[in-house]
Amino acid sequence: MSERLTLSLDAMGGDHAPHMVIEGMQIAHKRYPEVHYLLFGDERRIAPLVPQELRDRVTLRHTDQVISGDTKPSQAVRAGRTSSMGLAIKAVKDGEAAGVVSAGNTGALMAMAKLMLRTLPGIDRPAIATMIPTVRGESIMLDLGANTEVQANNLVEFAIMGEVFARCLLGHVQPSIGLLNIGSEDLKGTDALREAHRILREHPLNMRFHGFVEGDDIGAGTVDVVVTDGFTGNVALKTAEGTAKLYTKFLKDAFGSSLLARIGYLLAKGALAKVRQRTDPRRYNGAMLIGLNGICVKSHGGTDAVGFANAIGVAVDLIRNRLNDRIREECTRLAAQPDPVPAVAPSSVVSG
Amino acid sequence: MSERLTLSLDAMGGDHAPHMVIEGMQIAHKRYPEVHYLLFGDERRIAPLVPQELRDRVTLRHTDQVISGDTKPSQAVRAGRTSSMGLAIKAVKDGEAAGVVSAGNTGALMAMAKLMLRTLPGIDRPAIATMIPTVRGESIMLDLGANTEVQANNLVEFAIMGEVFARCLLGHVQPSIGLLNIGSEDLKGTDALREAHRILREHPLNMRFHGFVEGDDIGAGTVDVVVTDGFTGNVALKTAEGTAKLYTKFLKDAFGSSLLARIGYLLAKGALAKVRQRTDPRRYNGAMLIGLNGICVKSHGGTDAVGFANAIGVAVDLIRNRLNDRIREECTRLAAQPDPVPAVAPSSVVSG
Repeated sequence: MSERLTLSLDAMGGDHAPHMVIEGMQIAHKRYPEVHYLLFGDERRIAPLVPQELRDRVTLRHTDQVISGDTKPSQAVRAGRTSSMGLAIKAVKDGEAAGVVSAGNTGALMAMAKLMLRTLPGIDRPAIATMIPTVRGESIMLDLGANTEVQANNLVEFAIMGEVFARCLLGHVQPSIGLLNIGSEDLKGTDALREAHRILREHPLNMRFHGFVEGDDIGAGTVDVVVTDGFTGNVALKTAEGTAKLYTKFLKDAFGSSLLARIGYLLAKGALAKVRQRTDPRRYNGAMLIGLNGICVKSHGGTDAVGFANAIGVAVDLIRNRLNDRIREECTRLAAQPDPVPAVAPSSVVSG
Repeated sequence: MSERLTLSLDAMGGDHAPHMVIEGMQIAHKRYPEVHYLLFGDERRIAPLVPQELRDRVTLRHTDQVISGDTKPSQAVRAGRTSSMGLAIKAVKDGEAAGVVSAGNTGALMAMAKLMLRTLPGIDRPAIATMIPTVRGESIMLDLGANTEVQANNLVEFAIMGEVFARCLLGHVQPSIGLLNIGSEDLKGTDALREAHRILREHPLNMRFHGFVEGDDIGAGTVDVVVTDGFTGNVALKTAEGTAKLYTKFLKDAFGSSLLARIGYLLAKGALAKVRQRTDPRRYNGAMLIGLNGICVKSHGGTDAVGFANAIGVAVDLIRNRLNDRIREECTRLAAQPDPVPAVAPSSVVSG
């Protein structure tokens, strides 16, 4: 009802919770002083951490139950409704909060959010989307692990959602979309990829569809949105992380290999800090569980307060830019076409 | 019959052929002076390039036909037998050469090599394997694109072949094996992955099976052999390449961003060259088409003479270390077990 923006936070999710969550909230408060927070978790542990100046922005709701890292999604769905994560999602469902942020168990978060928030009309399967650094700036990649196997219509939905996500988060007027494959020729890849390619190419989706892209196009920033299944996306994202670490190790070895190199490092230190900054995983922390009736942002479990504050920032940006309204509009528009694409055909609207 | 080692080279394959091939052969000749070469291609273009001192090591066989980069595998199989690539493979089939190296069209090379050389007994589907740089040295990854979709038994075969490959090429006594997945828990991933995991875990394969690994384990060198399907492997390899380029770009920007940084760069230049060297794609050039009755090495199409010489080196190493004999022995041993693994069961021996 009011104009104020409330976020619900799973205060117990993440390796360094609840400290990291509360400190992240404090950092976010400096950037978004108007945001209110609903905190869910162990009151005895959380209350002492909330600083005086934030008291009027924070409502604390106690629960003893916590979803652990090894809780299976099925267990979470069965028994996790009164956990800090479950209650934080419920606050969005009940309209108390405009979005939820959790650094807890990804599988449990997706399963519970899917059950409680339901998918958006026209969307069959939600996905995990995030921002990644590229040579040309930043791109969006999805799915990153929600769907191990996909059909063509799922990939088309990911493209539609990713496009809106890029407009909201990167501010691009018309983001370009690419389907991740192992070659740019039409005959490469799986049946699902070739069929999704055909739909995206032939249907009047009002989308700047680039076609197939390959693994090296991710870092090159060839497209603004890289669409793939959750298995491939997860492997690609983690491979990129591993390669960045490998490169960092090689650099460290090089700078330590001679006196000249060590002096060179000292002189270039300030500049090199910028590289670290540009590739800092905390900067890209905050993956969106996209396709649900509610903004649900997953923070990396091992992140610190700075990373968690960035995840809060992602939620705020997406809420302010009305991500879900715009996905809904897009799906409605496409479903109303004389020849609707399979992804947003009435049948899948009904099943959603 | 003789002790001499002969390699057949597709002199027309690659962006910079035939110059690059002949120059690569010259570099390789310095490292392996005893190797003989059967060169296939356009005699008028190749003959003038072969230097006098190599004449007694080289036999040139003329053909006008070349497989181009956009030739489909099916076309190559139908009409490519008299191409430089087709004849170079045939030389291995006929026992004239111990192995073939080509920088031409990968799909065509795989299709023709599979048809002419056939798969090894016990191996259902050949794969593409290569060496990759890691924090801990070097690892092997396969498949990199031969099999877009796989069954559990294919993954098990890749593990067996990759293990022998690592012993031959990296010299590890007992290499560790990991299955690439999106989580280390047993319930993650596709059915094929879970089933392959079960077989590798339960059967007495005499293999150091680590279990599931994730994308960031590739660069970390967590295992010596990363086993995956051709789609995921191809995306992962190219994503790593793209990330390395991204990092290089960030570094360049940083070193150019201030006078101090520029001076720092000059001082560290020699040391930084080592990083370039360690990540030089030419150093890792030479992917093996593994699982065939014959050594078949694919060089990157865009490589230069140094890269092509390394691909020749891979072929020489694998021939000398009797890669295929050892894979055959391994498969025979496993097939003779009272409870043979599905991958090397008699039925697949017959179908191979």
